[in-house]
Amino acid sequence: MVTVDLNSDLGESFGAWTMGDDAAMFPLVTSANLACGFHAGDPATMLASCRAAARHGVAITAHPAYRDLAGFGRRDMEVPAEHLHADVLYQVSALAGIAAHAGAAVRSLKPHGALYNRIAVDLEVAEVVADVARGLGLPVLGLPGSAIETACRAVDVRFVPEAFVDRGYLADGTLAPRGLSGALLTDPEQVAERAVRMVVEGVVVAIDGTELTVHPESLCVHGDTPGAVAIARAVRAALDAAGVEVAAVV
Amino acid sequence: MVTVDLNSDLGESFGAWTMGDDAAMFPLVTSANLACGFHAGDPATMLASCRAAARHGVAITAHPAYRDLAGFGRRDMEVPAEHLHADVLYQVSALAGIAAHAGAAVRSLKPHGALYNRIAVDLEVAEVVADVARGLGLPVLGLPGSAIETACRAVDVRFVPEAFVDRGYLADGTLAPRGLSGALLTDPEQVAERAVRMVVEGVVVAIDGTELTVHPESLCVHGDTPGAVAIARAVRAALDAAGVEVAAVV
Amino acid sequence: MVTVDLNSDLGESFGAWTMGDDAAMFPLVTSANLACGFHAGDPATMLASCRAAARHGVAITAHPAYRDLAGFGRRDMEVPAEHLHADVLYQVSALAGIAAHAGAAVRSLKPHGALYNRIAVDLEVAEVVADVARGLGLPVLGLPGSAIETACRAVDVRFVPEAFVDRGYLADGTLAPRGLSGALLTDPEQVAERAVRMVVEGVVVAIDGTELTVHPESLCVHGDTPGAVAIARAVRAALDAAGVEVAAVV
Amino acid sequence: MVTVDLNSDLGESFGAWTMGDDAAMFPLVTSANLACGFHAGDPATMLASCRAAARHGVAITAHPAYRDLAGFGRRDMEVPAEHLHADVLYQVSALAGIAAHAGAAVRSLKPHGALYNRIAVDLEVAEVVADVARGLGLPVLGLPGSAIETACRAVDVRFVPEAFVDRGYLADGTLAPRGLSGALLTDPEQVAERAVRMVVEGVVVAIDGTELTVHPESLCVHGDTPGAVAIARAVRAALDAAGVEVAAVV
Repeated sequence: MVTVDLNSDLGESFGAWTMGDDAAMFPLVTSANLACGFHAGDPATMLASCRAAARHGVAITAHPAYRDLAGFGRRDMEVPAEHLHADVLYQVSALAGIAAHAGAAVRSLKPHGALYNRIAVDLEVAEVVADVARGLGLPVLGLPGSAIETACRAVDVRFVPEAFVDRGYLADGTLAPRGLSGALLTDPEQVAERAVRMVVEGVVVAIDGTELTVHPESLCVHGDTPGAVAIARAVRAALDAAGVEVAAVV
Repeated sequence: MVTVDLNSDLGESFGAWTMGDDAAMFPLVTSANLACGFHAGDPATMLASCRAAARHGVAITAHPAYRDLAGFGRRDMEVPAEHLHADVLYQVSALAGIAAHAGAAVRSLKPHGALYNRIAVDLEVAEVVADVARGLGLPVLGLPGSAIETACRAVDVRFVPEAFVDRGYLADGTLAPRGLSGALLTDPEQVAERAVRMVVEGVVVAIDGTELTVHPESLCVHGDTPGAVAIARAVRAALDAAGVEVAAVV
Repeated sequence: MVTVDLNSDLGESFGAWTMGDDAAMFPLVTSANLACGFHAGDPATMLASCRAAARHGVAITAHPAYRDLAGFGRRDMEVPAEHLHADVLYQVSALAGIAAHAGAAVRSLKPHGALYNRIAVDLEVAEVVADVARGLGLPVLGLPGSAIETACRAVDVRFVPEAFVDRGYLADGTLAPRGLSGALLTDPEQVAERAVRMVVEGVVVAIDGTELTVHPESLCVHGDTPGAVAIARAVRAALDAAGVEVAAVV
Repeated sequence: MVTVDLNSDLGESFGAWTMGDDAAMFPLVTSANLACGFHAGDPATMLASCRAAARHGVAITAHPAYRDLAGFGRRDMEVPAEHLHADVLYQVSALAGIAAHAGAAVRSLKPHGALYNRIAVDLEVAEVVADVARGLGLPVLGLPGSAIETACRAVDVRFVPEAFVDRGYLADGTLAPRGLSGALLTDPEQVAERAVRMVVEGVVVAIDGTELTVHPESLCVHGDTPGAVAIARAVRAALDAAGVEVAAVV
């Protein structure tokens, strides 16, 4: 039986502001990427999210970011390696302590936003993240074939390849930039079918029609878009119907 | 042989800004109250401070505060209990993870600034801090006879009474407000003599001349005032000369 | 003909987070209290809000707050007078420059959240706000009979008394604490009727049945609650139907 | 008679943290680049700095930065143009209001740190800054021959070329990266001599010996390094002795 994890960015509210419909998403996913305070996620939100994860049997993935509340961690920044190392360690450690208080544990690490994109292509920054993961004994989720995979393998950190069910791919296996037509898929049935094919056949069709081979251990569904819940629900149902075991893999 | 801990607020730099002369203070104290990011202490500073503590055999005390960088945590705030609980847990957890990375450990907890003052008199807020300490299994440093002592004893958290060697006391055992004459002592020899008397005789003379009984397990010396290093050096030398063992007590 | 202003807290989004339905509210109100960055309102939001205000002919009220993004400015803080003075001046000045860029102008000042509540009862803090308003030549909106009215009158700053259409009043004319039954009114028709009576008859019925005399120059409707738009629409329609001129008064 | 402005980054303290010796620098310079809150400079510091500028007859230059307190604005960031525009406008406007309160005015604009470096080479970002300056009617200080000069000239914003008296130059007229030998000059007499030659002869010798032609209207001396005051004092004295009029040029 094939197994795949279903992950989503959750816990991204901050103070009086809410983001996404976490209550609807937690029952659908098997791992939750929880913001750690630098791009979103005040401590009370982090604690509530860890409790929700524990309640739903959802694995917790630390989701650290650049220190950029105003930009939601989506803006690339030139952070010196030693500072970034400490910033990531700080965030993951804070979440780990809060998770423990909620009777849960951080099980893996997946950087957020601009930092996620950076470590896909910048080996030096990827090594910083891999080194933090190594120190904490955590697997790292990321784009297969990217710099972070290389960095993880170099220091014996388990790398969990993920695929994005609602994002278009280019022929070279990278994600299509958001501006491009087909970069964002919004039809739940289409996304669900695509998710099943990724897992069962190991194939995803790029926006130019090329068939790409993928072997995702985890599928990422967005949690903060208007149709996020409908997409997650359709994906989950389709995976179940196809006999895929949906479960955390770390 | 009498033993007393010598503690100081260190690690209070932030980014490009430095505070105090930590390099000179670390060799003199036996425990360091390290800022955790909310009033001071960016992650890189926290990591460097934990490494310095490990190198000098200095015990690490978590020094969480209200979220108030602009006010250095010195401004009282009305933070709802559940938010404060998560805020303190977040800060101590972050420091704990960073300390572990430096081969050290957080050994106790002492809130900073306005939060320190608040839990001396507000039992409800003190209970929040005591509850975090209980969950993490950490002793709490504080003013003897204050609300935080009551709160700690109620939940079986070890309470470590401390005395302030360079602050004037009122006849009721509380600290003299900073405005008052005699509220701040700056002569190293006078402060050192006073420190010895606190520990050896269990006596401190209030600013009105009243002799107060004290039994401090830890003495606090400031780390951020111009004469801080000279005072700490004089206190340490006088305690050594008086045959007092200066060592961490937690 | 009776004239009354209809004001609402708008522009309270921050970065990726949105708050309220500003697009629906701008056509309904005659003045907008715009966040200035300390509790909400990043600069891009401020600029978009000023442009919306200009487009709709809505007067801009600066809505400064304590520096407290994580608490949305709702937590009381002990800010020294000279710091608070600079903090308020900073926020209002920033908004003024942005408003000018949008072809508009800041026409009045109304502190937000905890600072609003504080200056209703604390004369010393109220004087700080009144002094900033005096320096900038701006009228101040506030609770009639409160400390800020006193402070404004003392330095010849125009004071604009406002009433809250969807909040319950106590018999002494102050707002019912949010915990109390009747503290928050959510039925649009009831709120609209109440708004008309406040303006036309100068009467509001407290939650214990007492009839209170009020002479509001401005009515505040909330912009951030689920039913905010329906309430604002009902109030606006009822005022129009009652022959009240709804217009900015500063 | 030749005239040159002497500018320095001042007002870079934040809350409890101080940076540089502003009290010693204000009497020596003729224009002060004042931080506006995003990389340094809390509002109370801004107000105190504006008052000091007014007292010493020093011209105020707005010194906006990326929103990056933890990195002191020294880390490059990818900020979308419309956000950066609002961020810069916000900061300059806030300083302008505070300056007015101090009886002074913002006379020019000079971005800080990473933003300064970015607009020297990135025309798109430079155009954002030039557009804010145009809207506010402010001249811009910057590196001659750089993108920001181009951007200013394109929209008829006065550009004030500056030279750095204590930084080494490469043969192409750009500043030597800080790592290179000769990148930072620390001998006051050498720096002073160099300053005079820049102004009187229009020449600066690059680190490889090349003689470069410069026509600075303003000379920048650092305010935050240990020897800053001694350097500024030597430069000022040498310019005075050489018969150069040291005065603000905007």
